[in-house]
Amino acid sequence: MSKAEGKAGELKSELVANRRFFHKYPETGWFTFFTTAAIAKKLKEYGYTLKLGREIVKPEAREGLGSQEALHSALERAKKLLPEEEHSLLDVMEDGLTGVVAEIDTTREGPLLAFRFDIDGVDVTESKEETHRPFKEGFRADIDGITHACGHDGHITIGLALAKIISENIQDFKGKFRFIFQTGEEGARGAVGMEPTGIVKGVDYLLGGHIGFQAKKTGGIICGTNKLLATSKFDVTFTGKSAHAAGAPQEGANALLAAAEAAIQMHSITRHADGVTRINVGVLRAGEGRNVIAPNAYMACETRGETTELNDFMRNKCVDIVEGVAKIHGVSYEVKGTGGTAGGDSSKAITDLYAKVSRESPYIKNDLIVEELDFGACEDFAHFMSAVQKAGGQSGYLMIGTELAAGHHNKSFDFNEECLVTGVDIFLRSAYELNGR
Amino acid sequence: MSKAEGKAGELKSELVANRRFFHKYPETGWFTFFTTAAIAKKLKEYGYTLKLGREIVKPEAREGLGSQEALHSALERAKKLLPEEEHSLLDVMEDGLTGVVAEIDTTREGPLLAFRFDIDGVDVTESKEETHRPFKEGFRADIDGITHACGHDGHITIGLALAKIISENIQDFKGKFRFIFQTGEEGARGAVGMEPTGIVKGVDYLLGGHIGFQAKKTGGIICGTNKLLATSKFDVTFTGKSAHAAGAPQEGANALLAAAEAAIQMHSITRHADGVTRINVGVLRAGEGRNVIAPNAYMACETRGETTELNDFMRNKCVDIVEGVAKIHGVSYEVKGTGGTAGGDSSKAITDLYAKVSRESPYIKNDLIVEELDFGACEDFAHFMSAVQKAGGQSGYLMIGTELAAGHHNKSFDFNEECLVTGVDIFLRSAYELNGR
Amino acid sequence: MSKAEGKAGELKSELVANRRFFHKYPETGWFTFFTTAAIAKKLKEYGYTLKLGREIVKPEAREGLGSQEALHSALERAKKLLPEEEHSLLDVMEDGLTGVVAEIDTTREGPLLAFRFDIDGVDVTESKEETHRPFKEGFRADIDGITHACGHDGHITIGLALAKIISENIQDFKGKFRFIFQTGEEGARGAVGMEPTGIVKGVDYLLGGHIGFQAKKTGGIICGTNKLLATSKFDVTFTGKSAHAAGAPQEGANALLAAAEAAIQMHSITRHADGVTRINVGVLRAGEGRNVIAPNAYMACETRGETTELNDFMRNKCVDIVEGVAKIHGVSYEVKGTGGTAGGDSSKAITDLYAKVSRESPYIKNDLIVEELDFGACEDFAHFMSAVQKAGGQSGYLMIGTELAAGHHNKSFDFNEECLVTGVDIFLRSAYELNGR
Amino acid sequence: MSKAEGKAGELKSELVANRRFFHKYPETGWFTFFTTAAIAKKLKEYGYTLKLGREIVKPEAREGLGSQEALHSALERAKKLLPEEEHSLLDVMEDGLTGVVAEIDTTREGPLLAFRFDIDGVDVTESKEETHRPFKEGFRADIDGITHACGHDGHITIGLALAKIISENIQDFKGKFRFIFQTGEEGARGAVGMEPTGIVKGVDYLLGGHIGFQAKKTGGIICGTNKLLATSKFDVTFTGKSAHAAGAPQEGANALLAAAEAAIQMHSITRHADGVTRINVGVLRAGEGRNVIAPNAYMACETRGETTELNDFMRNKCVDIVEGVAKIHGVSYEVKGTGGTAGGDSSKAITDLYAKVSRESPYIKNDLIVEELDFGACEDFAHFMSAVQKAGGQSGYLMIGTELAAGHHNKSFDFNEECLVTGVDIFLRSAYELNGR
Repeated sequence: MSKAEGKAGELKSELVANRRFFHKYPETGWFTFFTTAAIAKKLKEYGYTLKLGREIVKPEAREGLGSQEALHSALERAKKLLPEEEHSLLDVMEDGLTGVVAEIDTTREGPLLAFRFDIDGVDVTESKEETHRPFKEGFRADIDGITHACGHDGHITIGLALAKIISENIQDFKGKFRFIFQTGEEGARGAVGMEPTGIVKGVDYLLGGHIGFQAKKTGGIICGTNKLLATSKFDVTFTGKSAHAAGAPQEGANALLAAAEAAIQMHSITRHADGVTRINVGVLRAGEGRNVIAPNAYMACETRGETTELNDFMRNKCVDIVEGVAKIHGVSYEVKGTGGTAGGDSSKAITDLYAKVSRESPYIKNDLIVEELDFGACEDFAHFMSAVQKAGGQSGYLMIGTELAAGHHNKSFDFNEECLVTGVDIFLRSAYELNGR
Repeated sequence: MSKAEGKAGELKSELVANRRFFHKYPETGWFTFFTTAAIAKKLKEYGYTLKLGREIVKPEAREGLGSQEALHSALERAKKLLPEEEHSLLDVMEDGLTGVVAEIDTTREGPLLAFRFDIDGVDVTESKEETHRPFKEGFRADIDGITHACGHDGHITIGLALAKIISENIQDFKGKFRFIFQTGEEGARGAVGMEPTGIVKGVDYLLGGHIGFQAKKTGGIICGTNKLLATSKFDVTFTGKSAHAAGAPQEGANALLAAAEAAIQMHSITRHADGVTRINVGVLRAGEGRNVIAPNAYMACETRGETTELNDFMRNKCVDIVEGVAKIHGVSYEVKGTGGTAGGDSSKAITDLYAKVSRESPYIKNDLIVEELDFGACEDFAHFMSAVQKAGGQSGYLMIGTELAAGHHNKSFDFNEECLVTGVDIFLRSAYELNGR
Repeated sequence: MSKAEGKAGELKSELVANRRFFHKYPETGWFTFFTTAAIAKKLKEYGYTLKLGREIVKPEAREGLGSQEALHSALERAKKLLPEEEHSLLDVMEDGLTGVVAEIDTTREGPLLAFRFDIDGVDVTESKEETHRPFKEGFRADIDGITHACGHDGHITIGLALAKIISENIQDFKGKFRFIFQTGEEGARGAVGMEPTGIVKGVDYLLGGHIGFQAKKTGGIICGTNKLLATSKFDVTFTGKSAHAAGAPQEGANALLAAAEAAIQMHSITRHADGVTRINVGVLRAGEGRNVIAPNAYMACETRGETTELNDFMRNKCVDIVEGVAKIHGVSYEVKGTGGTAGGDSSKAITDLYAKVSRESPYIKNDLIVEELDFGACEDFAHFMSAVQKAGGQSGYLMIGTELAAGHHNKSFDFNEECLVTGVDIFLRSAYELNGR
Repeated sequence: MSKAEGKAGELKSELVANRRFFHKYPETGWFTFFTTAAIAKKLKEYGYTLKLGREIVKPEAREGLGSQEALHSALERAKKLLPEEEHSLLDVMEDGLTGVVAEIDTTREGPLLAFRFDIDGVDVTESKEETHRPFKEGFRADIDGITHACGHDGHITIGLALAKIISENIQDFKGKFRFIFQTGEEGARGAVGMEPTGIVKGVDYLLGGHIGFQAKKTGGIICGTNKLLATSKFDVTFTGKSAHAAGAPQEGANALLAAAEAAIQMHSITRHADGVTRINVGVLRAGEGRNVIAPNAYMACETRGETTELNDFMRNKCVDIVEGVAKIHGVSYEVKGTGGTAGGDSSKAITDLYAKVSRESPYIKNDLIVEELDFGACEDFAHFMSAVQKAGGQSGYLMIGTELAAGHHNKSFDFNEECLVTGVDIFLRSAYELNGR
């Protein structure tokens, strides 16, 4: 019988309380100042050594940073929420170097086992309907326009509880533990910004996961998620020259037509025999007036690929297209990355590990265990996973079952908090398997 | 020697005062409530019989009406500017049946001579720089976002003075006079809305013109403007279906790509051997998010043609294109007219008349007389002109020279007020030629 | 030990002779008159009941029939090659109802086991280089422009030997055997033309395969081929109206631009989350002269899909596109099918059967057995396979290993004739497994 | 009364004979070897000094030269038609330096008056119907595939008669005369190849014209042709990379899609406010097989413009487009000129001269005199005309009226030979006006 037995369940009420706390103060993107501070404070209490700021985020590797206005209002809000004595923490986070990495060493030889939890909310205004539990029970987001509608509040909570239990039972373990609390998962911005600082170097095992998604019932689990797609998010702007559309159209350089052609050409990039690819130009805005040759255009684009190579193939073709249409229409252009991640498959050994501990966990029902699933979407966990696997380590991504009140990113999103216990239990059992003495 | 001699010059100071008055209270589009009321009041004083509202505008023939919000704020503003006893006039104008037609009958047999003046401002915020005379001298627009930057304040002024002189000298004339004060020239919206009420039926001569444009010096005149282009302004919307760009792109109907293709196809409509054509998609806005198949798209389009037939050719091709791309992308569409006008050439007889009186006018310098000019742009005067010519009448459009402080529609637009006298003089001499006893 | 033991090997020299005979007289498409007659003659000798012509091909279901000239020269050639007394067989084949189905009944109750072999050559001129064995050893194609460069000569040979052995050992079997010798595999034309006559109705097991492809070594085998793609081949023609490109371009209807737009739009059909799709416009020919608006255009197109549904999705989108661009450019259009097939996966039971008998066969090396392979290409065997599977039967497609002198469809294509013995052995062992007593 | 009186009429039967002679032996493009030799022989007899070969054609300035096969068969044909003693002339013409320039000097001071006549046939097979006069009366082209269906046989004839009369009456004149017999007018190839040798340098007056076209009645004349369009003819080839459309589409570089996009983009080049422009992609051929990514594409293109500048605008945009789509699709490209000419208007003075002499000519009916006409098409006479005008000389292009049996370039084209006399008369009268003593 695993030494994990019973430990997760004991924390049930703390889990619920913590989740609701983080739910109430959502932040997004690189501006998760208060969230980071709150997590750091707890981890310190649990005895962990912390890294913050430039130690864990490379400023220039960040994409999709957000506006100065958003930065300032996020900082102001954090200052109001935090006691003054903790304001110094904010300085370390500068203009958005958020997230925290915590480590504990058993002092016994053994593997370096890392966990990654994402901590950011989404840009959605949470529901104020009476049927929405967070509203009814008083833990709705304290702000409009941002909310935890993807379940990352639950992920923070699971991660903190896991860190606490491991620390309290450190004598059971060998090797080291590292907890990566990563921001900017939405838009695939965070992992790309953190990975270059070396925070997954030397990691033997990297575990991570998500509540919900295709695991739609409490007691269910998807052990090994595969086909996490690689992706690139980027904005394209074309700058041409305005001219009167009747009086001198030949003097213009038509950015609207450049963008229109680029959009069509991007969508006609050849399919690839090596696997799944995707392209989308989701937004196109161009022009200033009906009778003016449009001098400007903006496109929000993204590519995806079953592998990093496939995504690169798509991304490179898009750049060729932008360059070509600029030549055709005599306009200048800019391609600006706003996010991205590698893709990949869970390591088979970790998938098997999750399956083994799931069969042992009292919170999982055997008939709801799915061994493997093709995700077909993006998660920047894969960016870390890919780095760990390339360096010889093993990594896997699971999904913890829970009923959802509404789909992810919906204003009425909510989940069954039972899944918090399940999450802690599965990760803890895995820790005992990998680093137990 | 013409009986017109001296009459225009005597009104110089009244002309300047009137122009500055109308300059200060600009209104746009169909919402020129106060301007209409102010013009009507004066015309009544001069002894004219007035027609307003549904008598002169066909509500359902209007295009580009504007939002309810804009309507309400325009009405509120007019109410504040007008004495309460004149508010009843506003009722006649309903939701934007603005403009006014005034008539006076000599009771002597003779031709029906009509003049048309446009009265609307443009959607530009006027300059507040010290170098801008209207600001410096206190007659800048009393509102931001609207100003008389095209010179229509001057046109109103010329029209009113002309009406006054003719009325005061009615014994010099035979036949009838009609003054059409038309709104919505910008965007080519007004004439199309007024013409169906029959206001140019039976007109023998229709005269009109503009200050400035290619007549860039005081003392200059362009007698006959030709190649007034026909035009159609229209908005195209495509409605598709959103879908997740990675998870189920095939479930979407991509309105962004439909619009992109339509834009390119419109610009590749064949040239026409019969004459000048133009096309522009000036604005394109589509999509909701980077990773969502775009469910909607909007395009602001316009076509032009040297003749009404050529413009129709372009317009019809555009509709074919919209229909075709809708089929290709599985989206629905709407094409909604927002303005338009016929095109045409000035009647040779009127051009010759303008040239004759110009040579006689003390305000015109002989070496600055241009007999004919190809305009190559749109003016919805041509919509009335075309109707008059088709019915056997004659019509011509001139340009009165003036220096400009900045180009038409520029925030610093201003003109040399000498041109007001010139304008009155030329039209008055023409009136004596055509309807003098 | 299987009763099959030794039987295939005994026929080695007959196999080589037969293969070289068929290699020498290649025919293509629906015009395999001589080939059909030669196969039919042998099958009759072996005691089979034959079906030919309209019994096995539905004339109007054929696509890609070929020109009248090609038909006549193929018939003339067949008449020269065939003894006069066999010319009556040609009458049954009319204008290209080629291929033959042979049946033998054990009179003992049991399953209906069918085999399918394809018999047509490809439109390539065979090499005359000294290094090319068929040329050096005197069995090169007797005609230019057609050759067996895909190995179907080998398939005929395997099929005939198998039919001979089964017939000679009929006392070993129960149930019935059916041999389908199908033409027009190239271009995916044959199965679609034959299937509607019901020739696979009631079939319990349908076996088939190919030599070479990804099975590149003698002694190798790929037991179960999956992801046989569905496909549609079709020609699109646009008919517009010519006009002088300078004098009256507006009077033309530009079929070249219609085709150009259709090609681009087809290649930009959305990817599909349910699986692999493909599109290609391989040929585009349009126009008559540099200064003439092009009145005609031709495109050779094909779609593919991992499933029949996915292929239909692509095909339907193409038709929408053709219809839409025709509207845009004012041209008429025709979409004419030239071939196609369903797609699908081998039945797992048949894959397992092939694997089992492979392990027993002395011609197969255990380390060269590949259990399953995704084909990712088209084979109209899948059209029969899909019909059998839908009716509750089982079907599978294997690949028999052989070294190749050059790739399939290359003018220097040749294979190691050892694979003929292997092919007979594997199918014979399967026959004993399924229908042995 | 002009000294020209009566002179043209006397040559009537010689004109008819000559025209029919040249009609019988048509040649095209740069390969008018026999035609050049026959013209040269006559001019020599008339006493002119001749220039041929490299003196009048710059080899590398030629475009649209034609294949080696066409060259050889044209040379062989010329050798058969010419007596052996004249074969040396062919050597001077090398690989197609055809055409001839002849000069005569009065030795009296005076202007240099030049005439230009075009001498090439078109690539059409002449009718053999009994209703076709050249066939019925035995002077149909002696070859299929080439014929004088544009009337250049008439032009040669007029030019020769004019040269003869001027030479025979040289005492009536002052100054010098130059006759330019130019090949390659079809496809706008000749003038561009000849002009750089300086053959119109120092020319004071350059006269030229055409029979037929918009002058559709005998006795009619169009004195001044304006808006001769500038043009560029060019071929575009794209070279990509073939790949299997299902197996590895990503390995291809799709030249078909590059050409399709280039065609659409060329047709969407913006209209130009300065005047008429034209674009046509008349032919597009791409691809090798239905299931192969197309590795090659060919487009036959032409641009035109009301002025040389406007044509250059179009041509340059086309090159930008080709370069841009090559980048987009990863293909290489070649743009190869095949012809072209400047554009322009006839000099007013020459138009007036033609009008004057037309009113005096007995062959012209006063009511059929058209003073000016916008041609709206291309004629490489304009290339010479433009050079002459730029250097301060004057030049004009007329049209001599004639009924046509069928339109220009039609296989049944024929004209009323009365127009030959008219042509000689008009040019002769002009010569007396300009260079008479």
